[in-house]
Amino acid sequence: MTTKRIISAVLGIVAGLLVAVVFFADFNQASENASGDLKSKAEKVYVPYGELDEYYMMSSGGHSGQLFVYGIPSMRKIRTVPIFTPDPATGYGYSKETKEMLGGFTWGDFHHPAISETAGDYDGEFLFANDVGNNRVAAVDLSTFTTVDIMSLPNMGGPHAGVFVTENTEYIALPTRFARPLDNKYADLDKYEEEYKGVVSMTTFDKETKKFDLAYQIVLPPWSYDLSDAGKKMSGDWIVMTTYNSEFATTNLEINASQNDRDYIVLVNWKKLEEEVAAGNYHDVNGAKMIDPRDHKGAIYAVPVAKSPHGVDVTPDGTRYIAAGKLAPMMTVFSFEKTFEAIEKEDFTDEKFGIPVLSYESVMEREVDPPGALGPLHTQFDDKGNAYNTMFISSEIVKWNIETGEVIDRTPSYFSPGHAAAAEGDTVSPDGKWLVSLNKISKDNFLSVGPSHPESMDLIDISGEKMEHIMAVPVDPEPHYAQIVHRDKIKTVTVYEKDENRENSVWKQEDARVERKGDEVHVYGIAMRSRFIFDAQSDRPDAVTVKEGDRVFFHLTNIDLDQDITHGFGINEYDLNFEVQPGQTSTLEFVADKAGVYPIYCTNFCSALHQEMSGYLLVEPK
Amino acid sequence: MTTKRIISAVLGIVAGLLVAVVFFADFNQASENASGDLKSKAEKVYVPYGELDEYYMMSSGGHSGQLFVYGIPSMRKIRTVPIFTPDPATGYGYSKETKEMLGGFTWGDFHHPAISETAGDYDGEFLFANDVGNNRVAAVDLSTFTTVDIMSLPNMGGPHAGVFVTENTEYIALPTRFARPLDNKYADLDKYEEEYKGVVSMTTFDKETKKFDLAYQIVLPPWSYDLSDAGKKMSGDWIVMTTYNSEFATTNLEINASQNDRDYIVLVNWKKLEEEVAAGNYHDVNGAKMIDPRDHKGAIYAVPVAKSPHGVDVTPDGTRYIAAGKLAPMMTVFSFEKTFEAIEKEDFTDEKFGIPVLSYESVMEREVDPPGALGPLHTQFDDKGNAYNTMFISSEIVKWNIETGEVIDRTPSYFSPGHAAAAEGDTVSPDGKWLVSLNKISKDNFLSVGPSHPESMDLIDISGEKMEHIMAVPVDPEPHYAQIVHRDKIKTVTVYEKDENRENSVWKQEDARVERKGDEVHVYGIAMRSRFIFDAQSDRPDAVTVKEGDRVFFHLTNIDLDQDITHGFGINEYDLNFEVQPGQTSTLEFVADKAGVYPIYCTNFCSALHQEMSGYLLVEPK
Repeated sequence: MTTKRIISAVLGIVAGLLVAVVFFADFNQASENASGDLKSKAEKVYVPYGELDEYYMMSSGGHSGQLFVYGIPSMRKIRTVPIFTPDPATGYGYSKETKEMLGGFTWGDFHHPAISETAGDYDGEFLFANDVGNNRVAAVDLSTFTTVDIMSLPNMGGPHAGVFVTENTEYIALPTRFARPLDNKYADLDKYEEEYKGVVSMTTFDKETKKFDLAYQIVLPPWSYDLSDAGKKMSGDWIVMTTYNSEFATTNLEINASQNDRDYIVLVNWKKLEEEVAAGNYHDVNGAKMIDPRDHKGAIYAVPVAKSPHGVDVTPDGTRYIAAGKLAPMMTVFSFEKTFEAIEKEDFTDEKFGIPVLSYESVMEREVDPPGALGPLHTQFDDKGNAYNTMFISSEIVKWNIETGEVIDRTPSYFSPGHAAAAEGDTVSPDGKWLVSLNKISKDNFLSVGPSHPESMDLIDISGEKMEHIMAVPVDPEPHYAQIVHRDKIKTVTVYEKDENRENSVWKQEDARVERKGDEVHVYGIAMRSRFIFDAQSDRPDAVTVKEGDRVFFHLTNIDLDQDITHGFGINEYDLNFEVQPGQTSTLEFVADKAGVYPIYCTNFCSALHQEMSGYLLVEPK
Repeated sequence: MTTKRIISAVLGIVAGLLVAVVFFADFNQASENASGDLKSKAEKVYVPYGELDEYYMMSSGGHSGQLFVYGIPSMRKIRTVPIFTPDPATGYGYSKETKEMLGGFTWGDFHHPAISETAGDYDGEFLFANDVGNNRVAAVDLSTFTTVDIMSLPNMGGPHAGVFVTENTEYIALPTRFARPLDNKYADLDKYEEEYKGVVSMTTFDKETKKFDLAYQIVLPPWSYDLSDAGKKMSGDWIVMTTYNSEFATTNLEINASQNDRDYIVLVNWKKLEEEVAAGNYHDVNGAKMIDPRDHKGAIYAVPVAKSPHGVDVTPDGTRYIAAGKLAPMMTVFSFEKTFEAIEKEDFTDEKFGIPVLSYESVMEREVDPPGALGPLHTQFDDKGNAYNTMFISSEIVKWNIETGEVIDRTPSYFSPGHAAAAEGDTVSPDGKWLVSLNKISKDNFLSVGPSHPESMDLIDISGEKMEHIMAVPVDPEPHYAQIVHRDKIKTVTVYEKDENRENSVWKQEDARVERKGDEVHVYGIAMRSRFIFDAQSDRPDAVTVKEGDRVFFHLTNIDLDQDITHGFGINEYDLNFEVQPGQTSTLEFVADKAGVYPIYCTNFCSALHQEMSGYLLVEPK
């Protein structure tokens, strides 16, 4: 090696070291910044003992059939509230009342929760849930976080596109996803265009009786209805729905339902249809008051939209509706003002199934197409006039200005976000504080639990100009949508009222009794710390003897009126379990079809002597 | 007011202000310290995106029947693994295989998880679960986090005191909680002492076939068996169990089972009994090989213990067993060495049901009685020779030295802790890093969800001399016990192997077919992004036509061999849903008892065209 070469080599090494030093300095700096960021993120989600989360997130549980309740910002899961699926942890689907409410079904597919609204704002009183699997709608009372009514919907094929409520909860709307023949008739798929229909259910809910009613249905072409939203303020009388499969494909929809460049948004004026129904202008179909657009003009319209849209969302001020393209890489902003003008002017380009089709150019305000952003599915809002879109394929959230279409920020989500939920995001006054991205794929984000991965959620701080990804959280399958409501709006009761006139209730130990009526045995019993009293007259008040084949009713009242003192009631080997909350009366009904001796015990840890809270069911052989 | 009085008053005010200033200065200082502590706590539990939790916590789900998997230190819930209760979110209890495994039962009461062990250390291969409700034991394969076997146990009345495994998983032991007549006979409660029995089930599990076997049972007096543990090292051949109700009370146990000052710990040498069984020295009772202590000497002993104990736990080195008093405010340390000596010397004070009762004074090493600490329930361990006890009544964790009995630290838990779980806490080598207190009452700790409160868990850092409470977390009802295992021990598979010889599997699209055998219709189908192929020969490969009354089998294979690509399969209005994981084949069996048209759809979001992944079941009317 020559001197020159040596010098070159040394210089090279020195230069390399300098580069390395600079690089490491930068790296350390970046690392310190990242570390500082992480501390700040950690503090943002940490809720110290003694404090409470600021928001409830009410998340659908998808095909679990249940509601998942989270606290935000901690992202701690607080509770699974059973809706469509039995839940032995709370006795739901085991007690007589809840078993009857489930009507023999064992699951549901809950996609879109909607909190009841007053003047377009969440009022925190009830939450509604759709069941895509078995065509039902349910209501959860948010004073007790219990399901209070479930109604089956005729003529439906999976009410995926619900539930969304009108701004004073006048209606809970559920459009169907899969077309089926009306009245559950059999018809071959060759007759799809003529015999299969899409149906929208317009249901009402009475807050006093806590019962649903099916007000009316709308029969529509056999397009697939995907998502919907209710108007607000100037658009308050309307609902909007996206459709796909305007091709009427009956097989291989992956390809065949993606042929047309445009599908439709369907607009419905629910107030006008309400008047039609009141005037008796409907047909009875399978017990439903059915509205047909071919008979009713002036209430139902269609707007062409980029192919196979997923979400359509009304802006907080009610002036626009925004479609997310799914198969088209853009969001389309439509103006309600322009829509109403086009309707007024009869600016129609076509008619389908009696439904006038409005001119796209006349009602469209803007197409927003961020470069490289693919698979927009759903739009949420903040308090500063911005929209947030989930991008399923490019795995990101895009923030943009509704007035100008300007893209303000983009942040990754992990991975493939479906919907997003913003704090008070579906109301007339979003809070602009937190956004949760509900992702469909989690890959390696969390400790592996085998082939069936958890879903994932990203908590994103949207209070600043730029979004900040704070935390990723795993979740059981499968949240599709959530609503985030401020804690001040939820007013719970923690102990049921002591109502001495309540049917089947027993409040005094000496009133606990067993009554036989033919082959029915009615036990009017008490659960209290730390014993059961079934029969005050017996030497063994916590034992009940019946005959094999008897129909047995345990009417049980929890007379412990203290917060958080739940008593369970399980019968060993009889596959039976239910619960009574403080002050609650509930009934378990079953046939004692197995002779023998079966321990009864409190299944919910209630006191220091919980283990001693037990008794026996003795079933004398025939 | 005199001048003197005025001066006094002013001085008093000044002094008061000084005190106030000093107080507030202190308060601010304390507040800043607290704030610093909170930052540090926040950082301890924050796991940034891209990193993983260090430990899995496998928690029982109580009467939910399921396993809850958490990450530690983040305390994020990763997954609900269904064991005893159907779970539509994963199709568990709907597919033919899992439905048969559940055997018609709809719930279980899962109290105590036990991870399989090799040489006294968690090996991370399987997890075992007891069902107090319906007398079963289950195994979860931790390579897939799925339940692989459930076995019903005869002669049992709620195997509460299990499951605990011996140090090489030779046995999974399950002692019963409620005495019942053997062989499910009927006997009046007046015959309790003669006819009712406590039974211990000794089950084995074959890791190759993944099946349980009931090796033998032990019949014991009708005491209630509450908790148990297996010995380690020098005590490896033994199991220990606590009892209550040595009074033989048959009613109002709250009072009647708390009369005696002492109940018993029962010690069983499982190895000796194994030899007896091998030699044919047992009676057949209801299909079980039953060992009776009246016939077998030298393997079963009783030790008196302070009244109504809950937990009994063997120290990591296997030298001692510690009973938690529940109704006596103390922990009792027993020496195995002294126990073996007493057995050797036949240092017996009594005999019950053929069981020699050892002298308390001879085998007891120490009583640990921290002042004011009430309701000890369970003991866990660290790597420095310390024990940690949950105190149900005084709501705290007490740390004390096993050798000296010295109480080292006490910290509150919120509220009423049952068990606690320490990192690797049941092994021969605990990690001494984290302790989770599993609490029974949460009161106002979290956002209210009505009368049915979440349970709560406290994460406590036990790496220092003093314990540090880090975070409180809500949880669904109701974890009773958990085990915390290091992530390095869990080896999962994320995609099932493509096994072309697997029964009913179909891997090529052209092989998808429908075969009719009498009134059985077998569909050999494929699920893939983003379509179903049931019948490659049909114009509509994603539609199946059957006749009303047919028995239908959908054998479905997911041929997407990519991580996290799950396909669901729901049939609208038919109350049916199941899933296939990547590479998995599974079967759904049902009777098509309703004529009409029923949409089939993928229930687990799988791809951008997931909504299009649908088809139809057409049921022709009879």
